[in-house]
Amino acid sequence: MKITQKIQQSADNDKIWWSFEYFPPRTAQGLQNLLDRIERMRALGPEFIDITWNAGGRTSDLTSEMVKTCQGLIGMETCMHLTCTNMPKEKVDIALREAKQHGCRNVLALRGDPPSGKDEWEAVEGGFIHGIDLVKHIRRDYGDYFDIAVAGFPQHMALPPDERDQEIQWLKEKVDAGVAFIFTQMFYDVQMFIDWVKAIRAAGITIPVVPGIAPIQTWNGFQRATSLAKIVVPQFFLDALEPIKNDDEKVREVGTRLVADMCRRILKEDIGIRGLHFYTMNLEKGTKMLLEELNLVPRIETIKPLPWRQSLTPNRRQETIRPIFWANRTKSYISRTENWDEYPNGRFGDSRSPAYGELDGYGVWIKQTKEDALKLWGHPTSFADIASLFARFCTKKLSALPWSDQAPSRETSVIAEQLATMNEFGFLTINSQPAVNGARSDDPVFGWGPSNGYVYQKAYLEFFVNPTLLNLLLTHIERDSNITYYVINKRGDLRTNTHSDGPNAVTWGVFPGKEIIQPTIVEAVSFMAWKDEAFELGQQWAKLYEANSPSQNLITELMDTCFLVNVVHNNFHEPDAIFKPFLKAGAEYVAAKAKATAVNGH
Amino acid sequence: MKITQKIQQSADNDKIWWSFEYFPPRTAQGLQNLLDRIERMRALGPEFIDITWNAGGRTSDLTSEMVKTCQGLIGMETCMHLTCTNMPKEKVDIALREAKQHGCRNVLALRGDPPSGKDEWEAVEGGFIHGIDLVKHIRRDYGDYFDIAVAGFPQHMALPPDERDQEIQWLKEKVDAGVAFIFTQMFYDVQMFIDWVKAIRAAGITIPVVPGIAPIQTWNGFQRATSLAKIVVPQFFLDALEPIKNDDEKVREVGTRLVADMCRRILKEDIGIRGLHFYTMNLEKGTKMLLEELNLVPRIETIKPLPWRQSLTPNRRQETIRPIFWANRTKSYISRTENWDEYPNGRFGDSRSPAYGELDGYGVWIKQTKEDALKLWGHPTSFADIASLFARFCTKKLSALPWSDQAPSRETSVIAEQLATMNEFGFLTINSQPAVNGARSDDPVFGWGPSNGYVYQKAYLEFFVNPTLLNLLLTHIERDSNITYYVINKRGDLRTNTHSDGPNAVTWGVFPGKEIIQPTIVEAVSFMAWKDEAFELGQQWAKLYEANSPSQNLITELMDTCFLVNVVHNNFHEPDAIFKPFLKAGAEYVAAKAKATAVNGH
Repeated sequence: MKITQKIQQSADNDKIWWSFEYFPPRTAQGLQNLLDRIERMRALGPEFIDITWNAGGRTSDLTSEMVKTCQGLIGMETCMHLTCTNMPKEKVDIALREAKQHGCRNVLALRGDPPSGKDEWEAVEGGFIHGIDLVKHIRRDYGDYFDIAVAGFPQHMALPPDERDQEIQWLKEKVDAGVAFIFTQMFYDVQMFIDWVKAIRAAGITIPVVPGIAPIQTWNGFQRATSLAKIVVPQFFLDALEPIKNDDEKVREVGTRLVADMCRRILKEDIGIRGLHFYTMNLEKGTKMLLEELNLVPRIETIKPLPWRQSLTPNRRQETIRPIFWANRTKSYISRTENWDEYPNGRFGDSRSPAYGELDGYGVWIKQTKEDALKLWGHPTSFADIASLFARFCTKKLSALPWSDQAPSRETSVIAEQLATMNEFGFLTINSQPAVNGARSDDPVFGWGPSNGYVYQKAYLEFFVNPTLLNLLLTHIERDSNITYYVINKRGDLRTNTHSDGPNAVTWGVFPGKEIIQPTIVEAVSFMAWKDEAFELGQQWAKLYEANSPSQNLITELMDTCFLVNVVHNNFHEPDAIFKPFLKAGAEYVAAKAKATAVNGH
Repeated sequence: MKITQKIQQSADNDKIWWSFEYFPPRTAQGLQNLLDRIERMRALGPEFIDITWNAGGRTSDLTSEMVKTCQGLIGMETCMHLTCTNMPKEKVDIALREAKQHGCRNVLALRGDPPSGKDEWEAVEGGFIHGIDLVKHIRRDYGDYFDIAVAGFPQHMALPPDERDQEIQWLKEKVDAGVAFIFTQMFYDVQMFIDWVKAIRAAGITIPVVPGIAPIQTWNGFQRATSLAKIVVPQFFLDALEPIKNDDEKVREVGTRLVADMCRRILKEDIGIRGLHFYTMNLEKGTKMLLEELNLVPRIETIKPLPWRQSLTPNRRQETIRPIFWANRTKSYISRTENWDEYPNGRFGDSRSPAYGELDGYGVWIKQTKEDALKLWGHPTSFADIASLFARFCTKKLSALPWSDQAPSRETSVIAEQLATMNEFGFLTINSQPAVNGARSDDPVFGWGPSNGYVYQKAYLEFFVNPTLLNLLLTHIERDSNITYYVINKRGDLRTNTHSDGPNAVTWGVFPGKEIIQPTIVEAVSFMAWKDEAFELGQQWAKLYEANSPSQNLITELMDTCFLVNVVHNNFHEPDAIFKPFLKAGAEYVAAKAKATAVNGH
């Protein structure tokens, strides 16, 4: 969505909004960390995020990659910076084409800083010289597709009047060339900012202005940023901060108060500004403190329209249904379905492409490095060792498994004890959800979707299990007509008690004035595609150990002989019913093993 | 669906099934009555129905019309008889083409009786001579599309051996020409039937045999039918029936026992027969008594897969969603949407054609004759008279309204008192449903769909109301954020508090192993199409009265000035909440009128 639309919507609802700016990091690990952070900071409720373009171009591909991930995987509206520095026209065109492909509708067109190591800005051959040339180029090639932003400099109010007027005149020309809104450079002199807004308004610039707010995180950072961009800092900022400059904690505390005062003044002033753009410097704490100080609380609805994160890539925007199997591996699901013509919307069956992408090239990998993995999972030498890892993961005593990068979700803790027991019996759970019979849509644990709605879930369990225990389980399962299941082995032999091959909705919501939304389903074709991945992750775990070591042999044999099973209890009015067959089968299994041991002992 | 498939399904589930035969009546009124009866008898659970072809052809178009109505409107699988009598090839082809169009997959090919007034059968010019010619013709033109049945005659066992063998040989030849199953003629000598089945099996006829069972309804009817077709009647039938032949009640009672014994014997005998085909003679009682005597209870699932009746016309078979507005006028909905390319399935928005057919030519009529209508509704001369009619309809003291041919459905009785009160206040309700928060799918009042499911409804009210009362109502409605409404007048000015124009699901069901089914919705475009019909029905009521009579003027003015309103209470956890704004607004309205009267009185 275009940022001007978001600004308009917030104005219509008389709501204050905010956004976050990030810059591409220098290393791959840094990128992964930043993406994790962007995802976490999504919970702070930014309306959109803004990714800078790295002058010098070394990391410019990263910008495009980050835009793709933020739009498609994290599901946040993104604004992409684009600078003229070191950018021949062809590179500009590639960047714009990719941005459009990823669903990005917002570009900040900048001349940019001089390339590193140079003092003066110079155009690259075949490149653009002024920001306005870039604006015109984008408008010519893409019409109205992008909201184009340019930078505004409140700082210019410190220039001699004729220079200042000249700058405002240049800004006016850029705006007239087709600019939709203005981001300002950071500032700390709020009066200067207000004067500047009034000056550009007087000059006939009527498009929205978004003030750039830089939280004060450390004294050094603050000093470096303000001196680099020659930002005017009011004396009372320095008076308050300098005495405590060696205490980072205090600097953030005092800085937060100072900047918050500035923000309040901006929002109070009669200049029509209802949004704040935070220069996060890729840091979390300062921005978070500032939002808390300003009492800007994220709206639930902004955050969780569906139980899983929606993608903002153009052809996925209508997607409203996904199979439950990839709940802990969204990125893999998105990759493996990247080439679908249409994405399931309303019903899964309507538009599902028959094919999931093959595993090769889709990066089915264990996220941990070998070193971290061994630290996490040790060297299991018996099935009991493995079962214990799974059980400890359920109760959050272990932070990850090869099948789950993150700790179990909050809703899973409701059934953590039952899951731990299952795992101790030998049902190695890799996915689950508890039954929910009509929680309110604003429920802190289970809620999603618009307000005044109710959400529901059928209990779901997915696990690896050995053939003997599976047979015991199935005799109990077959006695409960409310249970449907799919059993598959590594080879792909499928067994099920469902009569239709249509999808089973396991999460749905009922909302005022809407059709029923059913975002999560269990379905055979998807399960078979997921199976490859689930077994492959086990193989990869085995490969972390030395060839023919006891741990490798143990895990390899487990993957070769066990079954992957999913079970849905269709009666969501009885939350505990799904566990009963497992407890019975588990107890029988333990008794049989004890008996066998006793017999062998004699 | 083909009847052989149904037979196979029942065999797979080891279930006994039954079917009903009807014949086309001679008059239009008779047709309407019969269709009403077929619809009622649907509740007895026949797997399919069978419509005879009227020899002589006078009413052959009626057969086609009945097949259309039964498949498309009543939603029952139908078998169509087709005879050679008086049928040139062109007429046969028209009948087959239309049957296919209506979704009929079953044809009983007969030579037929001689035309009325003639003793000997003779072929019409360009027609077929033998049943086998008709069978071959259908196979040649339609391949496997139709299940072709032929008649079998257990009676032939009474013939001399060579004649009997000749008849069985002819049957074998027909079967070999592509017959799928055999309906037998009626019989009362069960041993003869069993012998005949064994004889045709011995002759190599392996297709299913469906015994034709004729309930005994009156002595005269029984005598006429058996003598006309020269049916062998065992002496003990006559011994039991003749002494009581003047007491219809008793004949039915004893006859039911006799025929039931026969049926039990057939089903018990080891000849693989699990289905009974009842010759109803268009009568209800005899068949019903027989089914009760046999303890053959209809299965819920056969009867109500959705809360409304599904159509079996080929292109409507996948239809799973309809707007609520036509709940009491299914026939009109089916007519007005007859030309849609696709029917809403899963989601309403997916496949809805933008256009509803115009009213002209779609038979928007008050079903009652003028005489019956005046008897029902009298000559209202005040708004209070009209409101009283509506209130009495809600409490079943009046059997019909211009907007509803039938008494309110069983589920509506739950809210009958509240509806009556609303009507007394001046909200003239024409459609409604109570809120349901998860009733079991086998609930006798609210249930539908497969077993082990739960069904839900949002409370719904639709009514005419005058502008003053509407304004009072809206102030109360706006205070409940769970209510969404649409208001429209005769001209089509629409007012709503919904933000999206997407559909609102008001009935849905959750079932094991399935996506959520949401068969009833409220939606703006459909409401606007329905509005024309709702106001037109009022106009037609007015026209029943003399021009410029007080009743005509009253109703006409009402239709010209009132609004049609629909209201959904989205919180289905609070069944009574929808009525609150009506009670408040109604009380205020009454108080204001009382005050006005008092002031005028002074």
